Amino acid sequence: MNITGKLFIDGDWQQGSGGTYQAVNPASGQRLDPPLSQAGAGQVKQAVAAAAAAAPVFRKLSLQKRADFLNACADEIMALGDALLERVMAETGYPRPRVETERARTCNQLKLFASTALKGDWLNARIDTAMPERKPLPRPDIRYLNQALGPVVVFGSSNFPLAFSVAGGDTASAFAAGCPVLVKGHSSHPGTCELVAHAIATAVKKCGLPGGVFSLLMGSGREVGAALVSAPEVKAVGFTGSFAGGMALAKAASERPEPIPVFAEMGSVNPVFLLPGAAKARAAQIAEGFVASLTLGTGQFCTNPGMVIALDDEATAVFIAETARRLAEVGAGVLLNEHICSAYAEGIERFSAHKGVARVAQGKAAGDSGYYAQAALYATTADYLVANSEIQEEVFGPVSLLVKCKSVDEMLRVAGMIKGQLTATLQAESAELAAHSELVDRLGLRAGRLLVNGFPTGVEVCDAMVHGGPFPATTDSRFTSVGTTAIARFVRPVCYQNFPEALLPDALRNHNPLNLMRMVNGEQTRAGIS
Amino acid sequence: MNITGKLFIDGDWQQGSGGTYQAVNPASGQRLDPPLSQAGAGQVKQAVAAAAAAAPVFRKLSLQKRADFLNACADEIMALGDALLERVMAETGYPRPRVETERARTCNQLKLFASTALKGDWLNARIDTAMPERKPLPRPDIRYLNQALGPVVVFGSSNFPLAFSVAGGDTASAFAAGCPVLVKGHSSHPGTCELVAHAIATAVKKCGLPGGVFSLLMGSGREVGAALVSAPEVKAVGFTGSFAGGMALAKAASERPEPIPVFAEMGSVNPVFLLPGAAKARAAQIAEGFVASLTLGTGQFCTNPGMVIALDDEATAVFIAETARRLAEVGAGVLLNEHICSAYAEGIERFSAHKGVARVAQGKAAGDSGYYAQAALYATTADYLVANSEIQEEVFGPVSLLVKCKSVDEMLRVAGMIKGQLTATLQAESAELAAHSELVDRLGLRAGRLLVNGFPTGVEVCDAMVHGGPFPATTDSRFTSVGTTAIARFVRPVCYQNFPEALLPDALRNHNPLNLMRMVNGEQTRAGIS
Repeated sequence: MNITGKLFIDGDWQQGSGGTYQAVNPASGQRLDPPLSQAGAGQVKQAVAAAAAAAPVFRKLSLQKRADFLNACADEIMALGDALLERVMAETGYPRPRVETERARTCNQLKLFASTALKGDWLNARIDTAMPERKPLPRPDIRYLNQALGPVVVFGSSNFPLAFSVAGGDTASAFAAGCPVLVKGHSSHPGTCELVAHAIATAVKKCGLPGGVFSLLMGSGREVGAALVSAPEVKAVGFTGSFAGGMALAKAASERPEPIPVFAEMGSVNPVFLLPGAAKARAAQIAEGFVASLTLGTGQFCTNPGMVIALDDEATAVFIAETARRLAEVGAGVLLNEHICSAYAEGIERFSAHKGVARVAQGKAAGDSGYYAQAALYATTADYLVANSEIQEEVFGPVSLLVKCKSVDEMLRVAGMIKGQLTATLQAESAELAAHSELVDRLGLRAGRLLVNGFPTGVEVCDAMVHGGPFPATTDSRFTSVGTTAIARFVRPVCYQNFPEALLPDALRNHNPLNLMRMVNGEQTRAGIS
Repeated sequence: MNITGKLFIDGDWQQGSGGTYQAVNPASGQRLDPPLSQAGAGQVKQAVAAAAAAAPVFRKLSLQKRADFLNACADEIMALGDALLERVMAETGYPRPRVETERARTCNQLKLFASTALKGDWLNARIDTAMPERKPLPRPDIRYLNQALGPVVVFGSSNFPLAFSVAGGDTASAFAAGCPVLVKGHSSHPGTCELVAHAIATAVKKCGLPGGVFSLLMGSGREVGAALVSAPEVKAVGFTGSFAGGMALAKAASERPEPIPVFAEMGSVNPVFLLPGAAKARAAQIAEGFVASLTLGTGQFCTNPGMVIALDDEATAVFIAETARRLAEVGAGVLLNEHICSAYAEGIERFSAHKGVARVAQGKAAGDSGYYAQAALYATTADYLVANSEIQEEVFGPVSLLVKCKSVDEMLRVAGMIKGQLTATLQAESAELAAHSELVDRLGLRAGRLLVNGFPTGVEVCDAMVHGGPFPATTDSRFTSVGTTAIARFVRPVCYQNFPEALLPDALRNHNPLNLMRMVNGEQTRAGIS
């Protein structure tokens, strides 16, 4: 499979009319061949029109065929073989094992959404049967079913070139819901985007779906994304990236003549609360896990542990010393692109400029070529954090801020002032966890996922995952972007009153042909209606 | 129970510091005693702070106690007796049977949310158990549960002084979710608001809940509502009312430092498609149902049938003639207030000013005193509607627009150009319904509820109801404001990773003490985990 630099629009590969650019290998700073084309305004319109035309067809496609399509996407990605792995490595600087793991996760995710689409719990099928004799008024037959919203725009992230990109979780969940997807691929890994788009395009063809079900539109500036979000036919947006990027999309979407929902996952600092008993019992062991989590993928995870809250005591001193010893052995890691590299440098400068913030540990220095990051741990006090709240802003990369507290009460106060987070972690002994349930409760108000004695990196793709959380971690805490309930972002309920059986969707027919768990007259059941 | 004109804030009745005003009897135009006070800025702050303080407590309250509280609210409303009915009648001009029906609906709704809270399906409890042996990485134990968002502001509507007001569906669903509620009551029925607030206040006290769980704040201007929506502690907004009002709230909420979700139900014209077979078979009978639905409650329903789409043929002529005959017998109806009365007059003027729109039927003329509406049916052609799309705007009150089409294809075209709707109705014979499934599909893209051979007024409160729909009917089509899934507006998921059993919420404990239907390792079950 050669990379051609073309875009996939309305079932065809087209040279983009918006000029060309080249991808860059971040490990070397070298440009990668061939030049890649960018979408012009007319091409965005064509893709959107095709998606709108495909939407009513795809919406009605049987769950089985939708599952077949998702499974086919996974199979075709695997069929890309080493060409895909090598391009991802060249465009991201990630080592092969990381890329292989991410590919497996991406394909498993597509397959999970295939089985989820089939199981149909997300349809939330509900039936209240007629009560013609009810007084004072009869009750009509009423049936409820979630259905696809319509065309969805997905913005790929930089840090997950496969799992949060062209065929990532947003795309998989939108497909499962029955929504056509228009992907604005991230310009940090455009060749990867094209390869994965080939896989989806092949699956679209093999499954006999309308070409408009999927489009890939690239562009290194903001024009393509802005045109997509303002297109009237687009009904929702999925995004993973920076706070500024997510907020710009949310603003644009809310100012449309018809506002549309934007689910933007914008990252967080993922505080780790190191309770005194745990620190005393296993400071060195926790430091080992912390350094591994902090530096994994050069710290380029939304769930990177960017803040540690601990007592200012001897056990924390051991934690710092062990972190320093381990971090000193960690080589500079490759960052994904020039922008992330300069933002990381600025973030480090911001910490350094604060007189109440001191560096207490660091990794090996970066060389001169390519985009590299030197890992670091900074430290401050709870008082200083409270007085300088801006230092809780995320710095994307392998850096964390240790907040020293005079007491557990002060740790509680920090838990009460931190912003909305994707995750919050407790390192704690069993007995002290029970004693500090107030801390657990406070963190539950601030985060989408709470962890005990683990580290936040590593987001399991499963039914029970929440990868979301209160603002500013996301634009809408009611949804998640990872896990099977991610489908809920892209559906809306429709109810049918007094409909003849023959016109009802299969999911709502009397004899329950899809064998769904349904809410029938107030009870969950798979039984049919006589 | 005497009306005092006070506000309920932080568990106490207070004289509002924002001046006084008087309610008006719309049937006579006379002011009603006593003068009623309005909230000052400091009182809004106090109420919000109390709600924020109550939120973590209410969030953790057992489902049984939450249900007890909702049932107590219903009981205390009934205990208000005739005093409530009479005040509603005086403030709205609604006749006693309408008010009794609405009271019953309101209390049944509170009880339905009590049983829904207890059943716990809305918690969406999910458990993926640990797989310590999984390769390449073990899976941790992960558990998912929906939880209360935090304090919710509810704006009461003018047209449902009980069912969409102080103790209406927004309040009931927010309480069921575990959210404190701050009600901005509608100034069209302030005495009613106070009486119902007394009922809730009594229930709060009897159930031993923190005073901040519920507040009533009144104000005839926009200041109180604006202050509530901008308060940082407020986490969501429910609103039923005009398009302009809903959009202003949505804008304010999106421009906060922390944007919050607004669920605004903003009405629609609820098109009724009169298919030719049905018109031929039963034009006169359909006209009878149509006139009853159009003039019910002086047309002051969000689901009032404001548009009829039919062929320009002999059967439609019969429908018009029969509508005209029946409408001529309908007396002028009371409108809720001066503002609605003048807006109705302006809407009628807008129709009259269009040369392509003609009046084809009308009710009896209004008198000189009070706020009354003369019902009417106007007619136009599909071509004229397409060229003058603004005439599809809702006119709140007993008026509808008949759109004459040259063919069923033209009816299809109208179905493709109408805006988002709460409801869409088909009057059709069985055979022609099956033949026009394309029309059903198109309407499914535009509406939240589809009806066959009924009329859209009369919104059943049940598990399967959708009272929502695509913009501009609402600000977020993914949710409904009537029916038990309305709870979903006010919860967000939190997941627990590797949590000790003792710290998990009851809903997620191994032995399933609440006997919930849960998704355990991909399967719906009530079984516990060993």
